[in-house]
Amino acid sequence: MRAVTMTGSGGPEVLGWGEAPDPVCGPGEVVVDVVAAAVNRADVMQREGNYPPPPGASQILGLECSGVISEVGDEVPGWSVGDPVCALLSGGGYAERVAVPAGQLLPPPEGIDLVTAAALPEVVCTVWSNVFLLAGLRAGQVFLVHGGSSGIGTMAIQLAARAGARVATTAGSAAKLEVCRELGAEIVVNYREQDFVAAVREATDGHGADVVLDNMGAAYLGRNVDVLATGGQLVTIGLQGGTRGELDFGVLMRKRGTVHATTLRGRPATGPGSKAEVVAAVLADVWPDVAAGVIRPVVDRQLPMSRAAEAHELLEASSHVGKVLLLAGQ
Amino acid sequence: MRAVTMTGSGGPEVLGWGEAPDPVCGPGEVVVDVVAAAVNRADVMQREGNYPPPPGASQILGLECSGVISEVGDEVPGWSVGDPVCALLSGGGYAERVAVPAGQLLPPPEGIDLVTAAALPEVVCTVWSNVFLLAGLRAGQVFLVHGGSSGIGTMAIQLAARAGARVATTAGSAAKLEVCRELGAEIVVNYREQDFVAAVREATDGHGADVVLDNMGAAYLGRNVDVLATGGQLVTIGLQGGTRGELDFGVLMRKRGTVHATTLRGRPATGPGSKAEVVAAVLADVWPDVAAGVIRPVVDRQLPMSRAAEAHELLEASSHVGKVLLLAGQ
Repeated sequence: MRAVTMTGSGGPEVLGWGEAPDPVCGPGEVVVDVVAAAVNRADVMQREGNYPPPPGASQILGLECSGVISEVGDEVPGWSVGDPVCALLSGGGYAERVAVPAGQLLPPPEGIDLVTAAALPEVVCTVWSNVFLLAGLRAGQVFLVHGGSSGIGTMAIQLAARAGARVATTAGSAAKLEVCRELGAEIVVNYREQDFVAAVREATDGHGADVVLDNMGAAYLGRNVDVLATGGQLVTIGLQGGTRGELDFGVLMRKRGTVHATTLRGRPATGPGSKAEVVAAVLADVWPDVAAGVIRPVVDRQLPMSRAAEAHELLEASSHVGKVLLLAGQ
Repeated sequence: MRAVTMTGSGGPEVLGWGEAPDPVCGPGEVVVDVVAAAVNRADVMQREGNYPPPPGASQILGLECSGVISEVGDEVPGWSVGDPVCALLSGGGYAERVAVPAGQLLPPPEGIDLVTAAALPEVVCTVWSNVFLLAGLRAGQVFLVHGGSSGIGTMAIQLAARAGARVATTAGSAAKLEVCRELGAEIVVNYREQDFVAAVREATDGHGADVVLDNMGAAYLGRNVDVLATGGQLVTIGLQGGTRGELDFGVLMRKRGTVHATTLRGRPATGPGSKAEVVAAVLADVWPDVAAGVIRPVVDRQLPMSRAAEAHELLEASSHVGKVLLLAGQ
């Protein structure tokens, strides 16, 4: 098959388009002929050599895709060759074919075309597992997500607003913040112009944020703890601002606060806390509202998979809003 | 009434024994004629000026006591003058009388004398709220508590062992570790001689600790995160090792770990997450096993309340095992 190849770790220029071995369909797995994959920030980190695939995962980039099942392994009830699917992956999405544990498959939501469905699994599963299953965001609480115009951000805003939370978000331009507002954000902060701690406190009468979804890690640690409400939870899922930061236990303790750091990719395929558990929860609790149009995938653009380098440049420049998709047939 | 007085913030010498205004019994409260109070590390911090009482709390030291109800305020069903009680306090225990919200009262467990009952409320409520209600320690998990011979430590070991967890603990002498072992600790680490990270990993085949109960804060942050198992939770309830430490998000994220920092004292008296909620859970889930002798208070010694300074010196020298009690009648 053809796949996005890497000549080594480095900038977007290490990405190419060439031959790779076909995936092998193990027990409990299917092979999907990929129609589209989506680009995630984690792919950029992996390309740079800073986010190695977990043991057993494909070395090929790509944490989500859509396509059609072309092979079904042993012990896979409920799925057949020819079924359209989208899938949460541990890797391998930037390719014409990928092997997927059956527990990570989802039917494309009704009314969503197969290409667009590739934009959903990673963002929906990430937001659902962290904001709802882990942090337990509830109606009436204040939710802050950084990078509101990113793929994760656009989905987090919608899911939190649907849950009845008051949604605050940060982004780097007025145009991006306008998109966030349309998606359901009530408190929008241009991080180039305003301090988000002051802005969120002011808009919430000093309450702060009950749950913060963070992609910045060390660079925002102090301010993220500052912005927490009493009993608040910081959930860090990305380290774009570095890994080592100073934690002020005095502040965290006064707030009786919590700091989580986690990744969806590292979870096991099956069992307690697994990807399969998250996928099943998403199918039950989110998919119906995607089909109903209440929650919608936000797609910035589609590019041929052979132009993956260009897609990575877009993400690194943060000039996108929502997801960038890669089409395998081109 | 008489109470332990303070001439200012500082060493044990600021503590005296003198006159203080009688407490006022508000609605929803009772006044307890104190028989005994227990000494907590938080009292030492408050004496030093590093742990101010929460708004509305008594300025007098003392987070737990036992005694007899001498006055019952409005809106207090279920309690009468003359009832023996022990109580979780926001302050005021180092005195002959103290006002207590009714939700923070407990009957002394059957078979436990009224003096000894003063050793229970703070440690049982702290361990139960943090290790079980917050971190959800379960049978088969590995639990690490620092300072296993302290009041908190001796109770945490017993409650975790009762829950079927494998208990690891640190202490500073072989004699203290022997007490910890008798209380149910399986993995005992002399922190003066051994690295607890290596010791716990080795004893658990590399698994690490699913829940860590920590009183050291900044000084242990790095190693506490290192010792966490996948999905592990660090619960910091004391800052004896300072407040500002470096958090390595890279390590925490690989473990999908959580850092909580919290205090029981800061919780509200009633409502969700309140002291009353914790006390009710303790009455239902712990008190029967105290009455049955499965869980026992560990008391180092009793001193007259007028010698509170001596009790603080004992705690600061860490020469005690279990709780130091102060008797009000002397």
